Amino acid sequence: MEHWLTKRALLTPEQTALELADGQRLSFRVLRERALSFAEHLARLDIKQQVAILSHNSVDMVVALWACTYLQTPVVFLNTKLTNAEWKKQCEDAHVSTIITSELLRKQAESLPVVVVTFAMVKELSALPGTVKETMKEEAICSMMFTSGTTGRAKAVQHSYGNHWASAIASVLNLGLTTDDKWLACLPLFHIGGLSILFKSVIYGMPVYLLERFDEEQVHQAIMHQRVTMISVVALTCARLLERLGDEQYPETFRCMLLGGGSAPEPLLKKAEQKQVPVIQTYGMTETSSQVVTLHETEALRKLGSAGKPLFSASLQIRDGHKALPAKQVGEIAVQGPMITPGYYQADASNQAVFHDGWFYTGDLGFLDEEGFLFVVDRRSDLIISGGENVYPAEIEAVLLAFAGVVEAGVTGRTDAKWGKVPVAYVVVSDPAITENALQAHCEQQLATFKVPKQIFFRKHLPRNATKKLQRYKLQ
Amino acid sequence: MEHWLTKRALLTPEQTALELADGQRLSFRVLRERALSFAEHLARLDIKQQVAILSHNSVDMVVALWACTYLQTPVVFLNTKLTNAEWKKQCEDAHVSTIITSELLRKQAESLPVVVVTFAMVKELSALPGTVKETMKEEAICSMMFTSGTTGRAKAVQHSYGNHWASAIASVLNLGLTTDDKWLACLPLFHIGGLSILFKSVIYGMPVYLLERFDEEQVHQAIMHQRVTMISVVALTCARLLERLGDEQYPETFRCMLLGGGSAPEPLLKKAEQKQVPVIQTYGMTETSSQVVTLHETEALRKLGSAGKPLFSASLQIRDGHKALPAKQVGEIAVQGPMITPGYYQADASNQAVFHDGWFYTGDLGFLDEEGFLFVVDRRSDLIISGGENVYPAEIEAVLLAFAGVVEAGVTGRTDAKWGKVPVAYVVVSDPAITENALQAHCEQQLATFKVPKQIFFRKHLPRNATKKLQRYKLQ
Repeated sequence: MEHWLTKRALLTPEQTALELADGQRLSFRVLRERALSFAEHLARLDIKQQVAILSHNSVDMVVALWACTYLQTPVVFLNTKLTNAEWKKQCEDAHVSTIITSELLRKQAESLPVVVVTFAMVKELSALPGTVKETMKEEAICSMMFTSGTTGRAKAVQHSYGNHWASAIASVLNLGLTTDDKWLACLPLFHIGGLSILFKSVIYGMPVYLLERFDEEQVHQAIMHQRVTMISVVALTCARLLERLGDEQYPETFRCMLLGGGSAPEPLLKKAEQKQVPVIQTYGMTETSSQVVTLHETEALRKLGSAGKPLFSASLQIRDGHKALPAKQVGEIAVQGPMITPGYYQADASNQAVFHDGWFYTGDLGFLDEEGFLFVVDRRSDLIISGGENVYPAEIEAVLLAFAGVVEAGVTGRTDAKWGKVPVAYVVVSDPAITENALQAHCEQQLATFKVPKQIFFRKHLPRNATKKLQRYKLQ
Repeated sequence: MEHWLTKRALLTPEQTALELADGQRLSFRVLRERALSFAEHLARLDIKQQVAILSHNSVDMVVALWACTYLQTPVVFLNTKLTNAEWKKQCEDAHVSTIITSELLRKQAESLPVVVVTFAMVKELSALPGTVKETMKEEAICSMMFTSGTTGRAKAVQHSYGNHWASAIASVLNLGLTTDDKWLACLPLFHIGGLSILFKSVIYGMPVYLLERFDEEQVHQAIMHQRVTMISVVALTCARLLERLGDEQYPETFRCMLLGGGSAPEPLLKKAEQKQVPVIQTYGMTETSSQVVTLHETEALRKLGSAGKPLFSASLQIRDGHKALPAKQVGEIAVQGPMITPGYYQADASNQAVFHDGWFYTGDLGFLDEEGFLFVVDRRSDLIISGGENVYPAEIEAVLLAFAGVVEAGVTGRTDAKWGKVPVAYVVVSDPAITENALQAHCEQQLATFKVPKQIFFRKHLPRNATKKLQRYKLQ
């Protein structure tokens, strides 16, 4: 296949690709030129392994991504909120030899044992022409993002070009496409919910209104006055936008608030309905290259609590082991389709655990009703979604257990009005002098702030089953 | 992949799939039920080879097509305008063992040496449950249609499910999709331009307004009053619609008149512009599963005479042999992409002649301008497009030469105000008693009416080159 950005720049060169809050606009022609130029400079580094991008949302970040696709180099996206210790582990696991970052994050990144260059530094390198390739292979890996899963050790989810293509196509068949469409991106581009907007933009020929981060007022103004028609949000940001909206109404041209990253509380959906905000609920994860199930707004109230139906080209079954269950029976959600990751990077055991016969086992529990609507009963019992970020108890428990005197540790999610869920910990200690503060300080050194337990309880023992497996659901 | 109609009936069961001029409507749920039922009855015939459908546009024809996909039986589409002799040849070549037809065409079909059943007869057969398969394989053959090419012997173009999928996706990325879309089908479904609408309908979840044939008044009324938003036309029907429109204006919701089947005369495009009719020109053929290049209406006048740019996922080069030519140089149009046929059915020599290194050589001549717009200079010199139907001189010449006393024959296209082009013949005879009428009567027995030469000229010799090859372009 021709490179998507090359093709897009041929089809609609002067169409806007990126629009910024300061009024700056880049056409697809210019985006391609900048990406090709960046690629030729980057090629000078002669990168043999993976490249990582560590950045807040910016034009530079978008250009760097497309440059890497022109070099056919997979990009590892690092979450800016993590600690140096976490980045270090991820760089090792994904064989990252070079990090491209912003001036802002440079200092932090330089503590890592890899080559660190800023966007500006790359542009200063002398160009190495003749290195870019303007074709794409469907099965080649385009991007990697880390997700922890049950083991506590983060694994890199690989996305092929075919995955991103299939995801963009499945979405367009669900949401449609008009020449007026403009998608606001305020989710981090290092998460799949943000990144997928960039591929949609180029494949559809659609402008992206790019914000550095979620800023309630900026997003509100963009929807009200900048002809934004679609936006991707999580429950937390959705709630804040509805709050900000107050008694106003979004323009009629605003047609989709795509809500992902964990299930939405019912009062929020009812509020959206009241305010006539077209919230479209979705279910998906990094491994499915973003949404794979969606609920149309017209069904939002009739099917309150449902995540909807699997998109065109995706299939979904509720399974008990390898057996598909009939409607209304709860089991594990398994999905199939061209947007599903080919697997975790160099993690055979993990891959064998989640793939069977072409089906990906999500680890989430749910059921289908008689009309085929999915109800997610429980995300992986070990997954806490906090403000749209995934938090894995096992990872936090491992950090707590590394503290001298901590004998047992269990982490679970507590409902929180602002963040949806926050992690709280339960520990058994051999040294009564250990304090909550000391443990939290220890965690803060090792873990991103959103993973640090908001509260730590001291217990004589933790609930365990007959085989001594921790029963996290009994912790609270 | 899940069967598209099954998936669609799961996603939007009550959405309208087919709408008829008499007000009848079928939902996707009902269409699926009817197709499954028809399939179970048809399975009773235990068809080992190909099935052909011979019909004017009708709900039965649509149901029969989808039934065959549920049985994973490729469908050969027969052109209703052909003669029995032509059908017979095509049934032989495509190994058709069974024809499904309408009551109207039954008598004619029954002269052929195959099993002939009407739609009604199939429904009378006892059902054979457990025979349908609700999955699809991308590479499996879905449909076949005949096209003649240079040899005069018609060849069956095969379309895989992947071809139809890729065509529908490439089109949606170009034309967009809204929940209000409704596509009027008045082109015969046995042509790719008509058939492709059915796949779009199911993949997009979009109603088709189905007409038995092109009827100027019916189409006009449907656009004016039935909320039709898109229609596929050829130059001839486009002209008649603009004529009928007079000083009226189509509703604003009507957003696309997709013009295919040969290039459009400039006065027609100017007239469309004047009347603010959104004509979108396309270039494509049976082998490309319909449009593969399109010109957006916004470019229609700036790029008058151009067919546009290759759709997303399709690539196009102007080639001289296997060498790509630069802009502005005329050469053979070669295309590549997932919508290109895997090849003609059991025709190795033909396939070797048109495929090279993944590129399909169309036989048409053209050039690209510096912006990448395609200009088709000449359809295959041997191709006459008459009212949207392809007419191949070699086929007519073979029929003329079979008449005792005809020594040489050459056929070419003459410009015609109504049909675009019509075939005219030049013959050398050894028997001076042969008349034009006698030859035309002979042709009428062998050839569809649109292929019968409108005029036959008697000559002493025909223009030939040094190797005695007929120079058709010198005939007139």
